[in-house]
Amino acid sequence: MIIKPWKILETSYLHPNIRVDKCELPNGHILTPHILDYDDEIMIFALTRQLEVVLIQQYRHGIQEVILELPGGSVDKGESPLEAAKRELMEETSYASDTFIEVGQASPNPAIYRNRIYSFLAIDAESIGKQSDYDAGAVDVTLIPLDEVVAMARRGELINSLNISTIFFALGHLDRNL
Amino acid sequence: MIIKPWKILETSYLHPNIRVDKCELPNGHILTPHILDYDDEIMIFALTRQLEVVLIQQYRHGIQEVILELPGGSVDKGESPLEAAKRELMEETSYASDTFIEVGQASPNPAIYRNRIYSFLAIDAESIGKQSDYDAGAVDVTLIPLDEVVAMARRGELINSLNISTIFFALGHLDRNL
Repeated sequence: MIIKPWKILETSYLHPNIRVDKCELPNGHILTPHILDYDDEIMIFALTRQLEVVLIQQYRHGIQEVILELPGGSVDKGESPLEAAKRELMEETSYASDTFIEVGQASPNPAIYRNRIYSFLAIDAESIGKQSDYDAGAVDVTLIPLDEVVAMARRGELINSLNISTIFFALGHLDRNL
Repeated sequence: MIIKPWKILETSYLHPNIRVDKCELPNGHILTPHILDYDDEIMIFALTRQLEVVLIQQYRHGIQEVILELPGGSVDKGESPLEAAKRELMEETSYASDTFIEVGQASPNPAIYRNRIYSFLAIDAESIGKQSDYDAGAVDVTLIPLDEVVAMARRGELINSLNISTIFFALGHLDRNL
Protein backbone atom coordinates (compact mmCIF):
# COMPACT_ATOMS: atom_id res chain seq x y z
CA MET A 1 0.00 0.00 0.00
CA ILE A 2 1.24 3.50 -0.84
CA ILE A 3 0.89 5.90 2.08
CA LYS A 4 0.21 9.41 0.83
CA PRO A 5 1.29 12.65 2.48
CA TRP A 6 -1.19 15.29 3.63
CA LYS A 7 -1.85 18.33 1.46
CA ILE A 8 -1.32 21.70 3.15
CA LEU A 9 -4.21 24.03 2.29
CA GLU A 10 -3.21 26.98 4.50
CA THR A 11 -0.46 27.87 6.96
CA SER A 12 -0.53 30.39 9.81
CA TYR A 13 1.47 30.99 12.98
CA LEU A 14 0.08 30.96 16.52
CA HIS A 15 3.54 32.09 17.73
CA PRO A 16 6.85 32.54 15.82
CA ASN A 17 7.73 28.88 16.37
CA ILE A 18 4.25 27.31 16.52
CA ARG A 19 2.86 26.77 13.02
CA VAL A 20 -0.72 25.76 12.27
CA ASP A 21 -1.25 23.91 8.98
CA LYS A 22 -4.74 23.31 7.66
CA CYS A 23 -4.28 19.91 5.97
CA GLU A 24 -6.38 17.72 3.71
CA LEU A 25 -5.82 14.00 4.38
CA PRO A 26 -5.92 11.38 1.60
CA ASN A 27 -9.39 10.31 2.89
CA GLY A 28 -10.66 13.89 2.50
CA HIS A 29 -10.70 14.70 6.23
CA ILE A 30 -9.40 18.13 7.29
CA LEU A 31 -6.99 18.43 10.25
CA THR A 32 -5.20 21.52 11.60
CA PRO A 33 -2.14 20.16 13.50
CA HIS A 34 0.17 22.44 15.49
CA ILE A 35 3.78 22.01 14.37
CA LEU A 36 6.74 23.11 16.52
CA ASP A 37 9.13 25.03 14.24
CA TYR A 38 12.03 24.71 16.69
CA ASP A 39 15.75 24.82 15.92
CA ASP A 40 17.67 21.56 15.77
CA GLU A 41 18.81 20.16 19.11
CA ILE A 42 21.85 18.26 20.33
CA MET A 43 22.50 15.97 23.30
CA ILE A 44 25.83 14.76 24.63
CA PHE A 45 26.89 11.50 26.27
CA ALA A 46 30.26 12.66 27.65
CA LEU A 47 32.57 10.04 29.15
CA THR A 48 35.57 10.89 31.31
CA ARG A 49 38.83 8.90 31.19
CA GLN A 50 37.55 7.03 34.29
CA LEU A 51 34.43 5.97 32.29
CA GLU A 52 32.12 8.24 34.22
CA VAL A 53 29.24 10.02 32.46
CA VAL A 54 28.84 13.79 32.87
CA LEU A 55 25.26 14.39 34.03
CA ILE A 56 23.44 17.50 35.17
CA GLN A 57 20.63 18.23 37.57
CA GLN A 58 18.31 20.99 36.48
CA TYR A 59 14.74 22.24 36.86
CA ARG A 60 12.46 21.40 33.94
CA HIS A 61 9.28 23.43 33.73
CA GLY A 62 7.30 21.00 31.51
CA ILE A 63 7.12 18.46 34.34
CA GLN A 64 7.91 21.03 37.10
CA GLU A 65 10.61 18.86 38.66
CA VAL A 66 14.37 18.97 39.24
CA ILE A 67 15.76 15.99 37.32
CA LEU A 68 19.01 14.32 36.31
CA GLU A 69 19.79 14.54 32.59
CA LEU A 70 22.43 14.42 29.91
CA PRO A 71 23.62 17.87 28.84
CA GLY A 72 22.08 19.26 25.65
CA GLY A 73 20.43 22.22 24.01
CA SER A 74 19.60 23.99 20.77
CA VAL A 75 21.77 24.56 17.72
CA ASP A 76 22.17 28.32 17.30
CA LYS A 77 21.83 30.04 13.92
CA GLY A 78 25.01 29.60 11.86
CA GLU A 79 26.30 26.83 14.11
CA SER A 80 26.79 23.16 13.17
CA PRO A 81 25.37 20.45 15.46
CA LEU A 82 28.97 19.56 16.42
CA GLU A 83 29.77 23.16 17.37
CA ALA A 84 26.56 23.33 19.40
CA ALA A 85 27.44 20.09 21.21
CA LYS A 86 30.88 21.42 22.18
CA ARG A 87 29.43 24.77 23.29
CA GLU A 88 26.55 23.32 25.32
CA LEU A 89 28.76 20.76 27.07
CA MET A 90 31.16 23.53 28.07
CA GLU A 91 28.46 26.02 29.12
CA GLU A 92 26.42 23.55 31.13
CA THR A 93 29.16 21.42 32.67
CA SER A 94 32.60 23.07 32.09
CA TYR A 95 33.67 19.80 30.36
CA ALA A 96 35.46 19.66 27.01
CA SER A 97 36.71 16.86 24.79
CA ASP A 98 38.93 16.54 21.71
CA THR A 99 36.78 13.65 20.43
CA PHE A 100 33.12 14.27 19.67
CA ILE A 101 31.45 11.52 17.59
CA GLU A 102 27.97 11.92 16.12
CA VAL A 103 26.32 8.60 17.04
CA GLY A 104 22.72 9.14 15.90
CA GLN A 105 20.03 11.45 14.58
CA ALA A 106 16.35 11.34 15.43
CA SER A 107 13.14 13.31 15.41
CA PRO A 108 12.01 14.33 18.93
CA ASN A 109 8.47 13.52 17.71
CA PRO A 110 7.82 13.29 13.96
CA ALA A 111 4.11 14.10 14.36
CA ILE A 112 4.66 17.60 15.75
CA TYR A 113 8.34 18.62 15.52
CA ARG A 114 9.97 19.79 12.30
CA ASN A 115 13.52 19.59 13.72
CA ARG A 116 16.07 16.87 14.41
CA ILE A 117 18.05 15.98 17.50
CA TYR A 118 21.70 14.93 17.04
CA SER A 119 23.30 12.63 19.61
CA PHE A 120 27.03 12.96 20.33
CA LEU A 121 29.46 10.79 22.24
CA ALA A 122 32.37 12.74 23.75
CA ILE A 123 35.40 10.67 24.81
CA ASP A 124 37.98 11.52 27.52
CA ALA A 125 35.98 14.56 28.62
CA GLU A 126 37.73 16.83 31.14
CA SER A 127 36.62 19.83 33.17
CA ILE A 128 38.62 22.80 31.93
CA GLY A 129 36.94 25.79 33.48
CA LYS A 130 33.73 27.11 34.85
CA GLN A 131 30.15 26.78 33.72
CA SER A 132 28.73 29.84 31.97
CA ASP A 133 27.23 32.52 34.21
CA TYR A 134 23.81 31.67 32.83
CA ASP A 135 23.99 28.05 34.00
CA ALA A 136 25.85 28.66 37.28
CA GLY A 137 23.33 28.17 40.10
CA ALA A 138 20.78 26.56 37.77
CA VAL A 139 22.66 23.43 36.69
CA ASP A 140 24.51 21.06 39.01
CA VAL A 141 27.10 18.70 37.49
CA THR A 142 27.40 15.06 38.66
CA LEU A 143 29.70 12.27 37.48
CA ILE A 144 28.23 8.75 37.56
CA PRO A 145 29.95 5.53 36.40
CA LEU A 146 28.89 4.35 32.92
CA ASP A 147 27.44 1.01 34.10
CA GLU A 148 25.39 2.75 36.77
CA VAL A 149 24.02 5.28 34.23
CA VAL A 150 22.88 2.42 31.99
CA ALA A 151 21.24 0.69 34.97
CA MET A 152 19.54 3.97 35.98
CA ALA A 153 18.25 4.43 32.43
CA ARG A 154 16.84 0.87 32.41
CA ARG A 155 15.13 1.51 35.76
CA GLY A 156 13.48 4.67 34.40
CA GLU A 157 15.51 7.03 36.61
CA LEU A 158 16.57 9.18 33.66
CA ILE A 159 13.12 10.45 32.79
CA ASN A 160 13.95 12.35 29.56
CA SER A 161 13.16 10.07 26.60
CA LEU A 162 15.63 12.05 24.45
CA ASN A 163 18.37 11.02 26.91
CA ILE A 164 17.38 7.38 26.45
CA SER A 165 17.76 7.54 22.68
CA THR A 166 21.17 9.24 23.02
CA ILE A 167 22.29 6.53 25.49
CA PHE A 168 21.06 3.83 23.07
CA PHE A 169 23.07 5.34 20.20
CA ALA A 170 26.18 5.87 22.36
CA LEU A 171 26.08 2.29 23.70
CA GLY A 172 25.70 0.98 20.13
CA HIS A 173 28.82 2.90 19.12
CA LEU A 174 30.79 1.76 22.18
CA ASP A 175 29.76 -1.89 21.67
CA ARG A 176 31.05 -1.78 18.10
CA ASN A 177 34.29 -0.05 19.06
CA LEU A 178 35.33 -1.44 22.45
CA MET B 1 23.99 22.75 45.38
CA ILE B 2 20.19 22.98 45.68
CA ILE B 3 18.47 23.56 42.34
CA LYS B 4 15.33 25.62 42.84
CA PRO B 5 12.14 25.43 40.77
CA TRP B 6 10.77 28.39 38.84
CA LYS B 7 7.93 30.45 40.30
CA ILE B 8 4.84 30.78 38.10
CA LEU B 9 3.64 34.41 38.13
CA GLU B 10 0.85 34.09 35.55
CA THR B 11 -0.68 31.38 33.35
CA SER B 12 -2.60 31.76 30.10
CA TYR B 13 -3.48 29.53 27.15
CA LEU B 14 -2.49 30.14 23.52
CA HIS B 15 -4.65 27.13 22.58
CA PRO B 16 -6.53 24.58 24.78
CA ASN B 17 -3.39 22.42 25.04
CA ILE B 18 -0.65 25.06 24.74
CA ARG B 19 -0.08 26.82 28.08
CA VAL B 20 2.06 29.91 28.53
CA ASP B 21 3.53 30.38 32.01
CA LYS B 22 5.18 33.66 32.97
CA CYS B 23 7.92 32.38 35.30
CA GLU B 24 10.44 33.99 37.64
CA LEU B 25 13.74 32.09 37.74
CA PRO B 26 15.83 31.81 40.93
CA ASN B 27 18.24 34.39 39.43
CA GLY B 28 15.38 36.87 38.98
CA HIS B 29 15.11 36.48 35.20
CA ILE B 30 11.63 36.25 33.69
CA LEU B 31 10.84 33.58 31.08
CA THR B 32 7.52 32.71 29.40
CA PRO B 33 7.88 29.09 28.22
CA HIS B 34 5.19 27.35 26.14
CA ILE B 35 4.12 24.09 27.76
CA LEU B 36 2.31 21.34 25.84
CA ASP B 37 -0.63 20.22 27.99
CA TYR B 38 -1.09 16.98 26.03
CA ASP B 39 -2.64 13.73 27.24
CA ASP B 40 -0.35 10.88 28.24
CA GLU B 41 0.94 8.75 25.39
CA ILE B 42 1.72 5.07 24.92
CA MET B 43 3.99 3.15 22.55
CA ILE B 44 4.05 -0.59 21.91
CA PHE B 45 6.86 -3.00 21.05
CA ALA B 46 4.74 -5.96 19.90
CA LEU B 47 6.51 -9.25 19.23
CA THR B 48 4.91 -12.15 17.36
CA ARG B 49 5.54 -15.78 18.26
CA GLN B 50 8.13 -15.82 15.43
CA LEU B 51 9.99 -12.93 17.18
CA GLU B 52 8.98 -10.38 14.58
CA VAL B 53 8.17 -6.81 15.59
CA VAL B 54 4.90 -5.21 14.46
CA LEU B 55 5.81 -1.93 12.75
CA ILE B 56 3.75 0.60 10.83
CA GLN B 57 4.42 2.99 8.00
CA GLN B 58 2.58 6.27 8.24
CA TYR B 59 2.81 9.90 7.20
CA ARG B 60 4.03 12.28 9.91
CA HIS B 61 3.28 15.91 9.35
CA GLY B 62 5.97 17.35 11.67
CA ILE B 63 8.74 16.12 9.38
CA GLN B 64 6.43 15.77 6.32
CA GLU B 65 7.64 12.23 5.55
CA VAL B 66 6.24 8.70 5.43
CA ILE B 67 8.23 6.75 8.04
CA LEU B 68 8.45 3.38 9.73
CA GLU B 69 7.49 3.43 13.42
CA LEU B 70 6.28 1.45 16.39
CA PRO B 71 2.53 1.73 16.94
CA GLY B 72 1.43 4.21 19.59
CA GLY B 73 -0.92 7.03 20.43
CA SER B 74 -2.65 9.02 23.16
CA VAL B 75 -4.36 7.79 26.30
CA ASP B 76 -8.04 8.77 26.06
CA LYS B 77 -9.92 10.28 29.00
CA GLY B 78 -10.96 7.59 31.47
CA GLU B 79 -8.60 5.04 29.96
CA SER B 80 -5.52 3.51 31.62
CA PRO B 81 -2.20 3.48 29.71
CA LEU B 82 -2.56 -0.33 29.40
CA GLU B 83 -6.07 -0.01 27.91
CA ALA B 84 -4.78 2.63 25.49
CA ALA B 85 -1.89 0.38 24.44
CA LYS B 86 -4.25 -2.53 23.69
CA ARG B 87 -6.66 -0.25 21.81
CA GLU B 88 -4.00 1.53 19.72
CA LEU B 89 -2.23 -1.71 18.79
CA MET B 90 -5.54 -3.16 17.60
CA GLU B 91 -6.71 -0.02 15.78
CA GLU B 92 -3.43 0.65 14.01
CA THR B 93 -2.27 -2.88 13.27
CA SER B 94 -5.12 -5.38 13.97
CA TYR B 95 -2.74 -7.17 16.39
CA ALA B 96 -3.69 -8.22 19.91
CA SER B 97 -1.85 -9.93 22.75
CA ASP B 98 -2.75 -11.52 26.09
CA THR B 99 0.52 -10.28 27.59
CA PHE B 100 1.20 -6.55 27.76
CA ILE B 101 4.08 -5.57 30.08
CA GLU B 102 4.80 -1.96 31.00
CA VAL B 103 8.58 -1.74 30.51
CA GLY B 104 9.26 1.97 31.04
CA GLN B 105 7.95 5.49 31.57
CA ALA B 106 9.50 8.68 30.30
CA SER B 107 8.84 12.33 29.55
CA PRO B 108 8.77 13.06 25.79
CA ASN B 109 10.67 16.27 26.66
CA PRO B 110 10.63 17.48 30.28
CA ALA B 111 11.28 21.10 29.27
CA ILE B 112 8.04 21.52 27.34
CA TYR B 113 5.73 18.54 27.85
CA ARG B 114 3.64 18.02 30.96
CA ASN B 115 2.70 14.43 30.07
CA ARG B 116 4.36 11.01 30.23
CA ILE B 117 4.86 8.31 27.63
CA TYR B 118 4.43 4.68 28.73
CA SER B 119 6.29 1.94 26.86
CA PHE B 120 4.72 -1.51 26.57
CA LEU B 121 6.08 -4.84 25.43
CA ALA B 122 3.41 -7.15 23.95
CA ILE B 123 4.33 -10.84 23.70
CA ASP B 124 2.95 -13.43 21.24
CA ALA B 125 1.02 -10.76 19.35
CA GLU B 126 -1.38 -12.07 16.70
CA SER B 127 -3.48 -10.40 14.03
CA ILE B 128 -7.10 -10.99 14.93
CA GLY B 129 -9.06 -8.71 12.66
CA LYS B 130 -8.93 -5.54 10.68
CA GLN B 131 -7.46 -2.14 11.40
CA SER B 132 -9.96 0.54 12.35
CA ASP B 133 -11.59 2.43 9.48
CA TYR B 134 -9.72 5.55 10.54
CA ASP B 135 -6.31 3.93 10.10
CA ALA B 136 -7.15 1.80 7.04
CA GLY B 137 -5.41 3.39 4.05
CA ALA B 138 -3.29 5.65 6.28
CA VAL B 139 -1.23 3.05 8.18
CA ASP B 140 0.57 0.10 6.58
CA VAL B 141 1.61 -2.81 8.83
CA THR B 142 4.98 -4.54 8.39
CA LEU B 143 6.59 -7.39 10.36
CA ILE B 144 10.37 -7.24 10.74
CA PRO B 145 12.56 -9.72 12.69
CA LEU B 146 13.59 -8.49 16.16
CA ASP B 147 17.35 -8.51 15.44
CA GLU B 148 16.84 -6.53 12.26
CA VAL B 149 14.68 -3.93 14.07
CA VAL B 150 17.45 -3.44 16.65
CA ALA B 151 20.02 -3.07 13.84
CA MET B 152 17.76 -0.57 12.03
CA ALA B 153 17.34 1.45 15.24
CA ARG B 154 21.13 1.53 15.76
CA ARG B 155 21.61 2.70 12.16
CA GLY B 156 19.12 5.54 12.69
CA GLU B 157 16.48 4.07 10.36
CA LEU B 158 13.74 4.37 12.96
CA ILE B 159 13.72 8.15 13.15
CA ASN B 160 11.25 8.62 16.04
CA SER B 161 13.26 9.12 19.24
CA LEU B 162 10.26 7.93 21.27
CA ASN B 163 10.51 4.59 19.42
CA ILE B 164 14.16 4.34 20.42
CA SER B 165 13.40 4.74 24.11
CA THR B 166 10.63 2.12 23.90
CA ILE B 167 13.03 -0.29 22.15
CA PHE B 168 15.68 0.38 24.85
CA PHE B 169 13.17 -0.43 27.62
CA ALA B 170 11.83 -3.52 25.80
CA LEU B 171 15.33 -4.90 25.16
CA GLY B 172 16.23 -4.33 28.83
CA HIS B 173 13.17 -6.35 29.87
CA LEU B 174 13.91 -9.14 27.34
CA ASP B 175 17.59 -9.31 28.41
CA ARG B 176 16.55 -9.77 32.02
CA ASN B 177 13.90 -12.37 31.19
CA LEU B 178 15.26 -14.46 28.30
